[in-house]
Amino acid sequence: MTTEAGEQAIHVPANAEDSQEFLADFAQMSTFGATPAGGVDREAATDADAAQRKWLAAWLTERGFEVRFDRIGNMFGLLELVPGAPYVLAGSHMDSQPRGGRFDGAYGVLAAAHAFDRLRRLYADPVCPTRPSFNLALVNWFNEEGSRFTPSMQGSGVFTGKLDLDAALATADGDGVTVSEALGRHGMLGDEVFPLNDSGGFRDERVAAYAEIHIEQGRELDKAGITMGVVPSTWGANKYEIGVVGWQGHTGATAITDRQDALYGAARIVVALRELAEIYGDELHTSCGQLTVYPNSPVVVPREVHMHLDLRSSSDDILAAADSDLSRMFTEIEIAADVQIEKRFAHTWKGHDYPAGGVALAESTIGDLGFRSMQVRTRAGHDSTNMKDLVPTVMLFIPSVDGVSHAENEYTADDDMLAGVTVLTETLARMVEGALTGSD
Amino acid sequence: MTTEAGEQAIHVPANAEDSQEFLADFAQMSTFGATPAGGVDREAATDADAAQRKWLAAWLTERGFEVRFDRIGNMFGLLELVPGAPYVLAGSHMDSQPRGGRFDGAYGVLAAAHAFDRLRRLYADPVCPTRPSFNLALVNWFNEEGSRFTPSMQGSGVFTGKLDLDAALATADGDGVTVSEALGRHGMLGDEVFPLNDSGGFRDERVAAYAEIHIEQGRELDKAGITMGVVPSTWGANKYEIGVVGWQGHTGATAITDRQDALYGAARIVVALRELAEIYGDELHTSCGQLTVYPNSPVVVPREVHMHLDLRSSSDDILAAADSDLSRMFTEIEIAADVQIEKRFAHTWKGHDYPAGGVALAESTIGDLGFRSMQVRTRAGHDSTNMKDLVPTVMLFIPSVDGVSHAENEYTADDDMLAGVTVLTETLARMVEGALTGSD
Repeated sequence: MTTEAGEQAIHVPANAEDSQEFLADFAQMSTFGATPAGGVDREAATDADAAQRKWLAAWLTERGFEVRFDRIGNMFGLLELVPGAPYVLAGSHMDSQPRGGRFDGAYGVLAAAHAFDRLRRLYADPVCPTRPSFNLALVNWFNEEGSRFTPSMQGSGVFTGKLDLDAALATADGDGVTVSEALGRHGMLGDEVFPLNDSGGFRDERVAAYAEIHIEQGRELDKAGITMGVVPSTWGANKYEIGVVGWQGHTGATAITDRQDALYGAARIVVALRELAEIYGDELHTSCGQLTVYPNSPVVVPREVHMHLDLRSSSDDILAAADSDLSRMFTEIEIAADVQIEKRFAHTWKGHDYPAGGVALAESTIGDLGFRSMQVRTRAGHDSTNMKDLVPTVMLFIPSVDGVSHAENEYTADDDMLAGVTVLTETLARMVEGALTGSD
Repeated sequence: MTTEAGEQAIHVPANAEDSQEFLADFAQMSTFGATPAGGVDREAATDADAAQRKWLAAWLTERGFEVRFDRIGNMFGLLELVPGAPYVLAGSHMDSQPRGGRFDGAYGVLAAAHAFDRLRRLYADPVCPTRPSFNLALVNWFNEEGSRFTPSMQGSGVFTGKLDLDAALATADGDGVTVSEALGRHGMLGDEVFPLNDSGGFRDERVAAYAEIHIEQGRELDKAGITMGVVPSTWGANKYEIGVVGWQGHTGATAITDRQDALYGAARIVVALRELAEIYGDELHTSCGQLTVYPNSPVVVPREVHMHLDLRSSSDDILAAADSDLSRMFTEIEIAADVQIEKRFAHTWKGHDYPAGGVALAESTIGDLGFRSMQVRTRAGHDSTNMKDLVPTVMLFIPSVDGVSHAENEYTADDDMLAGVTVLTETLARMVEGALTGSD
């Protein structure tokens, strides 16, 4: 939709009624798995996650979207505007970390749902001067968080052919419940390979492009006082599953010099990780988020510890150097603590650029709407990290107050949420009309 | 039983048939909760613990002992030889650590059961030249290990009035099951206050003396090649329940300088504990056996860690100094890791001597039987640690190969076990005839 002056006109100007409806829906959605401290606890395929998906399904059905699940539990809301044409996909994830925030992921799904619903109304209007080239598909990806079932971004990983479907379905949580059982129990397991793809792998003839909006989970936008972030690239990450193996003993009777204390070895690793981060300054994040001790009895020297380590960097070279440093540290700790350290599994992704076309489209759209934007690299992984390698992709951020995320006090102001929905709606309108795909 | 030359004669000389029966019973007993690696997994009031207690109850009943439980699930096998007289108590515990050894505790209960059964047969013989002054009470203490329900030595703690009965019954395991429920489920909850005491507190007019035999769980006897250890005193211990409180965040997005990583704080504590042990050399043991991370998700900076610390020393002065050192270290770690460290609970016992009379009786009995003995302080707590403060008490050790304990490869040779039963039998005969109580 271009004005006579050559500027892009706005398809759906922001209005008070839409804004109110969005905020009411967001409040409603945040009740699923709500915690007393204002967060949500809604891990993948739990009762809370299932209840929320049921609510979203009703919301979509009421508005004429067809709700479908694929075989890894990704949830879609499809609206066919152009019979047989590919889909523009947009969405995020509604699962959360244990005691996580109510914005992370869930905001992006609801923003995309409202954006698509605004476009549905737009194109249903007989006086609408423009026509879509593509169909609309909302997506609520399964298990982006990876807290209950490892790894993270599992739904989009399988969808894009980067993870094996059967291996993903067989993944078990800490209680031994598999993804397949958990999804099946809640009726969230579709029988199609994918609603958008009729074979095992990703087939881009059905998906034209992808857009996602998410809270920043960092403080760059908040510090700069800028409402919209455009993501030009990701940090790379190395994720390790580590086993530290020692020898079980009595805490009272076993002399210190005789100990092969797996927890002492693991604690040395956690401390070494912090030292590693300090070597590389702000360009490397190191973490251990999960650590489990066996047998974990007050008077027993631990025989084994399992831990998940996480290195992230803006630079693939730093990541490679840190990986070498870590191996050297492991060798030192094995000797000092008299334990064996086993690297059991590593999941890695390199730092990558998002497609330049998507960045340009987002920046011009934001400008046309009168907002300011800045580019913000993402340190966290997102489902768009998987999608961007396969189709034209736009990744948008709105501010997180103080950068807090994966915590109950995660917060984004209403106005920032509403600005994000406005920007996403216009960006999707342009994508649906062919802006990123040469069908304009 | 004194010979004409004034030497003590032996009441029940060792014989091949008794030895064979003991080893067969020990093998049978080790099948309850047996693990593939040769250990046992038989935490307090689990199915395996209950099955073993049922087996022991049948064994005792067959031989004429009356089986009774008290209100904290201590199990007794009573034999009245002198109507109305007090009891000599002997025993240990049959619960184990998770994946623990088959000798720790269980050996001592079976040794006492066999010893008492030998005395039963002795005094039943009309030509026996001596008579007992006291009755016999085998005891299998509830929850000595403290791995499922904290603290350890719970049954003897309540029996001796050092722990509150109602508080102990309300203690929950990691799944929220209380002591009261777990005992009730297996019919191991007696309705008497204690079979030996008819009021709430410990009344020593019903208990004349106590004896216990246990594997050393250290390597002093094994290194010296000596079969029998006599325990003259205990190490003291300080046990702490610690909470490390930080702030939950995203491992990818939260800058290192902004982190309040509870696990980093906890890891620093584990490393500091080892440094503390190194300051005091072999006179201080420091340990962290239990550490639990919240929320324990791979991509979340931990908000809280709960841990159990354990300091043990031969010297109460060193223990007090180490406690001060620990507080100083906590303050440093609070600043370095930007976390709060809360000392939630501390359970402490000072180093204490065992009664001199019991040590002397054990040493002379061992000598009369032709074995060598040495004194070995105990670093671990035992139920006798509770009993020794109230009644004349004997604590005996037999060797542990390489000092290994609380582990599946804990091992004591058959001959050492048999020597222990012989020594315990003779010691109990002398106690039952008044050796420690002035009724000789």
